Amino acid sequence: MTHKVAILGASGYTGAELVRLISQHPSIEIAALAAERKAGLTMAEVFPHLRHLDLPTLCKISEIDFSQIDLCFCALPHKTSQEVIAALPKDLKIVDLSADFRLRDPAEYEKWYGNPHAALEQQEEAVYGLTEFYRDEIRGARLVAGTGCNAATGQFALRPLITSGLIDLDEIILDLKCAVSGAGRALKENLLHAELSEGYNAYAIGGTHRHLGEFDQEFSKLAGRPVKVQFTPHLVPANRGILATTYVKGDAEAIHAAFVSAYADEPFIEVLPFGTAPSTHHVRGSNFCHIGVTADRIEGRAIVIAALDNLTKGSSGQALQNANLMLGEDETAGLMMAPLFP
Amino acid sequence: MTHKVAILGASGYTGAELVRLISQHPSIEIAALAAERKAGLTMAEVFPHLRHLDLPTLCKISEIDFSQIDLCFCALPHKTSQEVIAALPKDLKIVDLSADFRLRDPAEYEKWYGNPHAALEQQEEAVYGLTEFYRDEIRGARLVAGTGCNAATGQFALRPLITSGLIDLDEIILDLKCAVSGAGRALKENLLHAELSEGYNAYAIGGTHRHLGEFDQEFSKLAGRPVKVQFTPHLVPANRGILATTYVKGDAEAIHAAFVSAYADEPFIEVLPFGTAPSTHHVRGSNFCHIGVTADRIEGRAIVIAALDNLTKGSSGQALQNANLMLGEDETAGLMMAPLFP
Amino acid sequence: MTHKVAILGASGYTGAELVRLISQHPSIEIAALAAERKAGLTMAEVFPHLRHLDLPTLCKISEIDFSQIDLCFCALPHKTSQEVIAALPKDLKIVDLSADFRLRDPAEYEKWYGNPHAALEQQEEAVYGLTEFYRDEIRGARLVAGTGCNAATGQFALRPLITSGLIDLDEIILDLKCAVSGAGRALKENLLHAELSEGYNAYAIGGTHRHLGEFDQEFSKLAGRPVKVQFTPHLVPANRGILATTYVKGDAEAIHAAFVSAYADEPFIEVLPFGTAPSTHHVRGSNFCHIGVTADRIEGRAIVIAALDNLTKGSSGQALQNANLMLGEDETAGLMMAPLFP
Amino acid sequence: MTHKVAILGASGYTGAELVRLISQHPSIEIAALAAERKAGLTMAEVFPHLRHLDLPTLCKISEIDFSQIDLCFCALPHKTSQEVIAALPKDLKIVDLSADFRLRDPAEYEKWYGNPHAALEQQEEAVYGLTEFYRDEIRGARLVAGTGCNAATGQFALRPLITSGLIDLDEIILDLKCAVSGAGRALKENLLHAELSEGYNAYAIGGTHRHLGEFDQEFSKLAGRPVKVQFTPHLVPANRGILATTYVKGDAEAIHAAFVSAYADEPFIEVLPFGTAPSTHHVRGSNFCHIGVTADRIEGRAIVIAALDNLTKGSSGQALQNANLMLGEDETAGLMMAPLFP
Repeated sequence: MTHKVAILGASGYTGAELVRLISQHPSIEIAALAAERKAGLTMAEVFPHLRHLDLPTLCKISEIDFSQIDLCFCALPHKTSQEVIAALPKDLKIVDLSADFRLRDPAEYEKWYGNPHAALEQQEEAVYGLTEFYRDEIRGARLVAGTGCNAATGQFALRPLITSGLIDLDEIILDLKCAVSGAGRALKENLLHAELSEGYNAYAIGGTHRHLGEFDQEFSKLAGRPVKVQFTPHLVPANRGILATTYVKGDAEAIHAAFVSAYADEPFIEVLPFGTAPSTHHVRGSNFCHIGVTADRIEGRAIVIAALDNLTKGSSGQALQNANLMLGEDETAGLMMAPLFP
Repeated sequence: MTHKVAILGASGYTGAELVRLISQHPSIEIAALAAERKAGLTMAEVFPHLRHLDLPTLCKISEIDFSQIDLCFCALPHKTSQEVIAALPKDLKIVDLSADFRLRDPAEYEKWYGNPHAALEQQEEAVYGLTEFYRDEIRGARLVAGTGCNAATGQFALRPLITSGLIDLDEIILDLKCAVSGAGRALKENLLHAELSEGYNAYAIGGTHRHLGEFDQEFSKLAGRPVKVQFTPHLVPANRGILATTYVKGDAEAIHAAFVSAYADEPFIEVLPFGTAPSTHHVRGSNFCHIGVTADRIEGRAIVIAALDNLTKGSSGQALQNANLMLGEDETAGLMMAPLFP
Repeated sequence: MTHKVAILGASGYTGAELVRLISQHPSIEIAALAAERKAGLTMAEVFPHLRHLDLPTLCKISEIDFSQIDLCFCALPHKTSQEVIAALPKDLKIVDLSADFRLRDPAEYEKWYGNPHAALEQQEEAVYGLTEFYRDEIRGARLVAGTGCNAATGQFALRPLITSGLIDLDEIILDLKCAVSGAGRALKENLLHAELSEGYNAYAIGGTHRHLGEFDQEFSKLAGRPVKVQFTPHLVPANRGILATTYVKGDAEAIHAAFVSAYADEPFIEVLPFGTAPSTHHVRGSNFCHIGVTADRIEGRAIVIAALDNLTKGSSGQALQNANLMLGEDETAGLMMAPLFP
Repeated sequence: MTHKVAILGASGYTGAELVRLISQHPSIEIAALAAERKAGLTMAEVFPHLRHLDLPTLCKISEIDFSQIDLCFCALPHKTSQEVIAALPKDLKIVDLSADFRLRDPAEYEKWYGNPHAALEQQEEAVYGLTEFYRDEIRGARLVAGTGCNAATGQFALRPLITSGLIDLDEIILDLKCAVSGAGRALKENLLHAELSEGYNAYAIGGTHRHLGEFDQEFSKLAGRPVKVQFTPHLVPANRGILATTYVKGDAEAIHAAFVSAYADEPFIEVLPFGTAPSTHHVRGSNFCHIGVTADRIEGRAIVIAALDNLTKGSSGQALQNANLMLGEDETAGLMMAPLFP
């Protein structure tokens, strides 16, 4: 059986990545592609790399007949997303890729995003979309909130440790290195090739990055008490990839064993041999996440490093993985492509 | 029915690319991976991006039982390839990715490659592997010689014009821009990141690049008289992609029409609207070739530009496309993945 | 004696490059930096790489007391530049980096730039700023029009041949590979790191690039009859550099000899040994231009390749070289820094 | 007065960088360039970006008449360097850029570098070359040991804090992001453009990087008790730059004040306004080091980030700064060039 999906926000990178992935999916068909400002254009005009595909012309959201749609991907900017989703049919399955439905507490949402939430009803029913840890809820969900790409990476590196008693919960540092596509297609000086390539820097230092809202929510919930991590993202001159270097206090070998056990049956999480460092080179364009654990020379300290592709496992791949569950398909359908290297 | 294949030279880029592609193929199974100097290692150790796959351990060629192999990909350096292939079973289907069996005339081979050919018998039976133009011969071939990646790109941009009478055959200039993976995994100073990134240059200028042997052979054969093109390759700081900017004398609109017609039924060749320039950005990691035709402001001159991914359509993708034909499979099996952008 | 200069358009790349160069100049002092939209900011806020310098705060042009200024660099967008320059004191020495005063014929200006020229008086007195060929005029000029960066590169590769009788003037092809900083700090999707890196493409194909106006003007003037070249620029993923691969018909060795002779006394033009290809890697951040000549395998054809840094020799370095002449300083003052490699 | 210098190891990146810098120095002349394997070649053949300079031909060390040399730069690999220096005249001023004379304790040297030290006499007299902290000793030294580039960056970010009592000395984490030129011109697969660009990873994780020997030595000496830091370097796809993100426990504003005070008179150290993140983009090709301090959202934690160019301030620029002191020249001579951006 073929499922018909719509993608709202098809002119952005996560929208295009969804099309790339779904083009290889055995049982999902793209029935509508919406992009308000580019409505009327073909997808080939907006993204020439997709010109070989037979795709619907870009339209406005208002032109879509949602009664013909089995599931809708929302790849819109946050804030826009909540407004659009509030107006969609109440029984339509939705995977949202924005930040709008990730935080359970409306006050937390407003604190991190600056505006009161405009779709509280939908927010309440939304399920957090980190597939490996919310699989059952996602299977039965109507609205799934895709996680932040940094938030996903950090959680893959830390969740199995939060409840394990293996690490000191008050001494967690995440130093993230992020590629530029995570910033989307936004026209900003610092995202220009001339300004971004050949150098790198930290940004949102000091605990101001919005994905901290997700870390706080999820880690505190897991631990049953407030957990606050230190998180510094860096922008590096590459297009895809997030590398989370995580500094924790605990026994490295026990931590490695915990990861091996926690992810033993996961199709997309690869725990590397002890002492091995993962690289974003080895996950590009794929839905895999590589995790490595190493002991520091200082006793009682470990370094956990996770690598994934922000556009795939960190965003559109995760979204499709969740959609597969919601549609009753094999969770890995359309997602087993190997990374692109070199 | 599943076909069993061996890949000789699995520790190079074209070998790894074959594994990436075949990992998504519905009816081909990798039964053996050979790499003389890395025999005994797992593929995950040599190429960590393939660690999610269940693959045979790297072995020596001598360890392979070819009676269990339906088709063998040879991704070895030229000269080595002819020696290895001469010693393989005479009825084994082979797709060779090296330069060894591309040139029909042993004297031409020696002229361009510097050594006398050591497998003349096999050379004689080899079929030139430019699928779109040798489809029938390839279907029935035992040994197919994959084309040079630059040679493939230039031919996609020129073959339909050579026999058409539309252009002046003595006034063809190919200015190619090549990404670095075409040079393979060779350890050379000019291929280091520090020396290659941030700049670019021509190389093999003046008509000394070996792929000229293929252009001469194919274009002269097509035209029924000697045709010599001018060809200057450039090395640019990117990993995948060849862009052939071809300067010809002829009517641009007629040339465009000739391309539209010649490639109308080709699954992998996309002729862009008249006046549009293709980009290597839009074919990365895919088996597609994009072709654009534009009229110059000087009357009677046209610019034909072709873009493809040297590792995929220019090498391993082409090899799999040919293998599909040789094995009686759908020509496009395992090859319809969309390009990776951004 | 110290000369006081103003830089109008200090928040763009060519403005910043001027500051970089002048910071090492023995006898030029920056007295004013104007940037209309960023007036009030310090240069360190706009360009943190210049924070070690003691510079005037950015101001509006109207705030500058030009009676205290010996020479003014205009690094403004074309069209804006002519409006601003028309209003500046009539005796102020000016080096303009925009396109506004490059073309002698107002009709040609309008043809290529789309608007009627608004400063015809100044246009008439302007001297074309290709230092090596207009040295005497520049020395006595009040207003010098900096050349286009592509136009400069192509002219270094061709001017000595136009009057020599060594090449066929109707068979000249320029295939240019340009780095991205030539496009300035403009916010466009195709200039984003995510869209530009990892691939490359031709643009303005078919003879539509505005720098053709300069080629036509200069080459025709030199030849004493209309000369039209074919010119295709390409955008490559690097920040600085232009490589002009020029295809001409003529004797390569004679051409090389002509270059050696023409540039024998030039401090910034390096003619490489015959058969050697220059690289943009080897001129980055410097005011040098490297030129190589090679014979093609087809008799009677030669390839001339020129490489320079578009922001330095192609723009701000050229501007300072001209300013040196206009101010009676040593032409090379502040310009002898070695390229940055790697 | 002009000082004559020799550069041993002129065919590597730090050797070439020395030539670049010295080419603009008012009172240093390069009298000899040695490179054993490339002896007989011109520098232009080895590094075409230096072809405009009038330089001595590359020779063997044994061919240099050291009686004519005022100061010798050794840019040789470690281990080779100690052997060569042991054989040089005992009164020759030397700036060594290798690791051989950085560690005071021969046992520590052997622990980190694996071989017993072969020039103990010279090791004993060597002065550690971190100019800003050893200025007086360097001025009177015969042999100065240039620091590791990572070690320099980490020390600029931490030294003022070690003696201040402002931070917890047992809780220091250095997460470094290093560009590739720090690895030198070594031919290794992971340094190829195809393997390094487009991704990034940690290496030498767990406290195995050799520069830890320097951190241990210097920080323990400063503190008067053993201090061990946690240090994880990462390789990022850029050619120049080190960014040290340092996590410390202490009051961020007090830390910032300590930096402002400590570096108030330093010509090359720029302390950014509180809360500002430095970028390697803004120090490329220069001898500047930018330092930023930010408070984390978790009280009592601060992030100190330092950025410099590994080849300049981290190596050859530092070496020239030290040579200036040893020769009685202005410390900043030849070193005030602005960074290259973009």
